Amino acid sequence: MRPDIVFIGAGGAGLTAAFIIARKRPETRITLFSRDPVVAYSQCGMPFVLDNKIESFDRLILYTPEVFKDLGLDVRTGVAVTGVDLDARAVTLEGGETVEYGKLVFSTGSIPFIPSVPGVGLRGVHRLLTLEDGRSLARAVEGAKSAVIIGGGPIGLETAPAFLDRGIEVTIVERMPHLMPSALDPDMAVFLEDYLKEMGATIITGKGVESINGAGKVESVTVGGETIKADLVLMAAGVRPNVELAKKAGIDIGPAGGIDVDERFRVKKNGRALDDVYAAGDCIEEVNAITGRKVVCAIGTVANRQARFLAEQLMGNDVPYGPVLCPAIAVVGDLHVGSVGLTTMACEAAGIKPVSFKARSNTRARYYPGGSQLNIKLIADGERIVGAQLMGKEGVHGRVNQLTLAIHKKMTPSELADVETCYAPPVSPMIDPITYAAEMLALRCKKGKR
Amino acid sequence: MRPDIVFIGAGGAGLTAAFIIARKRPETRITLFSRDPVVAYSQCGMPFVLDNKIESFDRLILYTPEVFKDLGLDVRTGVAVTGVDLDARAVTLEGGETVEYGKLVFSTGSIPFIPSVPGVGLRGVHRLLTLEDGRSLARAVEGAKSAVIIGGGPIGLETAPAFLDRGIEVTIVERMPHLMPSALDPDMAVFLEDYLKEMGATIITGKGVESINGAGKVESVTVGGETIKADLVLMAAGVRPNVELAKKAGIDIGPAGGIDVDERFRVKKNGRALDDVYAAGDCIEEVNAITGRKVVCAIGTVANRQARFLAEQLMGNDVPYGPVLCPAIAVVGDLHVGSVGLTTMACEAAGIKPVSFKARSNTRARYYPGGSQLNIKLIADGERIVGAQLMGKEGVHGRVNQLTLAIHKKMTPSELADVETCYAPPVSPMIDPITYAAEMLALRCKKGKR
Ligand SMILES: Cc1cc2nc3c(=O)[nH]c(=O)nc-3n(C[C@H](O)[C@H](O)[C@H](O)COP(=O)(O)OP(=O)(O)OC[C@H]3O[C@@H](n4cnc5c(N)ncnc54)[C@H](O)[C@@H]3O)c2cc1C
Ligand SMILES: Cc1cc2nc3c(=O)[nH]c(=O)nc-3n(C[C@H](O)[C@H](O)[C@H](O)COP(=O)(O)OP(=O)(O)OC[C@H]3O[C@@H](n4cnc5c(N)ncnc54)[C@H](O)[C@@H]3O)c2cc1C
Repeated sequence: MRPDIVFIGAGGAGLTAAFIIARKRPETRITLFSRDPVVAYSQCGMPFVLDNKIESFDRLILYTPEVFKDLGLDVRTGVAVTGVDLDARAVTLEGGETVEYGKLVFSTGSIPFIPSVPGVGLRGVHRLLTLEDGRSLARAVEGAKSAVIIGGGPIGLETAPAFLDRGIEVTIVERMPHLMPSALDPDMAVFLEDYLKEMGATIITGKGVESINGAGKVESVTVGGETIKADLVLMAAGVRPNVELAKKAGIDIGPAGGIDVDERFRVKKNGRALDDVYAAGDCIEEVNAITGRKVVCAIGTVANRQARFLAEQLMGNDVPYGPVLCPAIAVVGDLHVGSVGLTTMACEAAGIKPVSFKARSNTRARYYPGGSQLNIKLIADGERIVGAQLMGKEGVHGRVNQLTLAIHKKMTPSELADVETCYAPPVSPMIDPITYAAEMLALRCKKGKR
Repeated sequence: MRPDIVFIGAGGAGLTAAFIIARKRPETRITLFSRDPVVAYSQCGMPFVLDNKIESFDRLILYTPEVFKDLGLDVRTGVAVTGVDLDARAVTLEGGETVEYGKLVFSTGSIPFIPSVPGVGLRGVHRLLTLEDGRSLARAVEGAKSAVIIGGGPIGLETAPAFLDRGIEVTIVERMPHLMPSALDPDMAVFLEDYLKEMGATIITGKGVESINGAGKVESVTVGGETIKADLVLMAAGVRPNVELAKKAGIDIGPAGGIDVDERFRVKKNGRALDDVYAAGDCIEEVNAITGRKVVCAIGTVANRQARFLAEQLMGNDVPYGPVLCPAIAVVGDLHVGSVGLTTMACEAAGIKPVSFKARSNTRARYYPGGSQLNIKLIADGERIVGAQLMGKEGVHGRVNQLTLAIHKKMTPSELADVETCYAPPVSPMIDPITYAAEMLALRCKKGKR
């Protein structure tokens, strides 16, 4: 029988939405296709398996096929969808079979961006997207002596300690002038760079990779004329929305490169929203809450949150999905790197004149042992807080969420500085670093206005 | 020369305000009296010195007398003020000397509540307020075999592990039916009780102490007819505003037992605010932001925040101080106990019909080792969030501040559930426990309305 809903992709977005609907509307016939052989695993955990923090990749598998069966979900793993016929309301599978749908959801995720340089196809060049990628990388690190990580974004950096802790010589190459450029300002990225250097990594910024070299298997990487020995390369130069199928079907791709959806997650064709065809997760683009501009925000929390809104739409509850702030945290070794809202660069690109303040504090009372330095940068548009960056070995996660709330509520720095906070010596200084940074930022905003 | 400002008390409130003024208006002549011989130390750190987490009481001393001198502050330690003459604008010191003031600030802090039972004066009965108390208790625990902690509030419970970790047999006696009754509901306090029991403590709730027994030195404590061996007693039955001097001077004491001040921290006499006489810190009462009722909120963050507002007033900047939510966190062994706003009991006392939801989650992704259980209770008045209680071995501090912000902004549970959060497996589950609890609470509020 024709499924009521077909999902192309059974990852963070697709599977989550399907689970919600299956629980609340068990009568709904749902089919999910995944070209990956394994689904319902946590991509986000892979760097920590590689670093032996988690004992095996199997631990990352959150649900077994039995769970799908119990929920009445038809999950077809290892099956790629090769075409979508919007008029016939059917998808084509590899091998040629077609499956009709009542409603269709593109939840195809993202794909690692592979720069077009010679040698990307050599053996020893890895990426880290699927569980298979993870297992293959785990095999490769055994015995590796030198590695080049191409890209200084969260995936590459979260994985770097797995190499460093094994004594592998690691070089990180970031094309932009500093690490994690989409989350951090240069003056914050420097703490991350120092930390990675202390761990033994070599960091090259402001230079792109020119070629990956080797006979069959990678032997070195050329960066800015220099040749770096490498028996392992991790391609981690960011991800791009996986929009190939949607594009082929004539669906609109937006200015940020993701599928262009409306606030009901309906895809568009020639600017007009289609009924019964949706998209969610890493493959779409959405609206930044501060600038109103289209952005791609390829993180699990966003995909998960979209899935919850999408599920409501698919069940007939019209809860519109709004603009986003994309709070994120990456854990690089022991260092927690958090960010939300706009960086200085993003402000400038959006025509916002940023006013910022950077504070260095401690995560505990200064006499309480075992704490960590906490670096905070708050950014305002002269009036309201629009961005925050935090780094420390503890105390980052909750503060990112707190600042997300503050930005969401369009708070001014002085209003935030005024809000009470809690304190005990083992968990914070008396005056929270956020309070202090907000107070100082308020002064700067005031000065700027005079 | 007559000081411009005299502070009675050089603790969290008085000294902080004096520091701010000394830095911003160095020409101001400021004198502070402290009956304690040592000032500028962290009371809050004492339980952790006792538990050997911090190496010595000296580490708690944050500023030396040289710093006061450099700032031009006249700090007179070990000098009690015995009287205040509001008409003559002068204070009397023990010994009889009088000192005139331009402006006067009562920052006399709080005093431990001592229940009126026989034996409270016996040797071996301790309290924990001043550094001297701390040092004396530290000497007493060496060689102690059994201890009774009278009072199940934060100070007693933060100190309990110092006894337990030394193998001392510990009994905690709380007159109310559960531990930390002003911060926790019974169904949350149970986790704290279980934790302390696991550490080896005996807990008696719902019973008051009848007598402390011994010949010269404490030997036992009688509770509910039962006699408990004890060579050490810690009086930790809460604190009361230290209002003795103010009362003697004819200054109004409010319904909650603290000095009654207006939003400029001016004390009142017969209901009329006095110019030039102020009070701040543990000795005053203030307004609860949700109920509008008077409360005493004897925590360091509140005293520190008041001091910052008071300093502005004393410098002639009229920044009024508003109602409070009193977010707090106590660290009991490894367990972090956080709270903000109203408990169920406080709701009922204020005529608010509480709707609540309790969630149990993990502080990390479920496959990531080393996390802790996180218990959260959110309370709404049917419409907006009015209280929160959290307990776990990590991830409590930031969430208390996040929830404080949510309550401050008068958010509904469904609005809070909607706000984005960040995630990485080592620091949180994909869906933040707050998001989940808020979502479920929103459903309960909706149901309640039908
Ligand atoms: C190493 C790593 C670490 C990460 N860490 C974090 C983190 O700490 N925090 C965080 O918030 N986010 C993190 N992320 C991001 C997060 O994992 C993604 O944002 C999230 O998985 C996106 O969900 P999705 O459903 O859009 O895509 P995916 O989960 O990638 O799912 C895409 C699905 O589409 C299927 N598919 C694609 N094309 C086809 C086709 N043609 N036919 C059939 N099936 C198809 C795939 O097989 C897959 O099932 C991390 C990502 C990686 C790779
Ligand atoms: C063991 C312990 C742990 C704590 N832990 C925390 C915590 O983790 N977090 C938190 O937020 N809060 C905590 N607190 C509470 C915090 O320490 C107080 O709220 C804060 O110190 C109050 O500041 P204050 O200036 O009002 O009073 P205090 O700091 O107590 O200062 C009072 C001052 O008044 C002086 N004084 C009183 N009467 C006279 C007189 N007649 N003449 C002259 N001087 C006088 C005293 O000598 C002293 O200098 C803790 C308290 C204790 C005791």
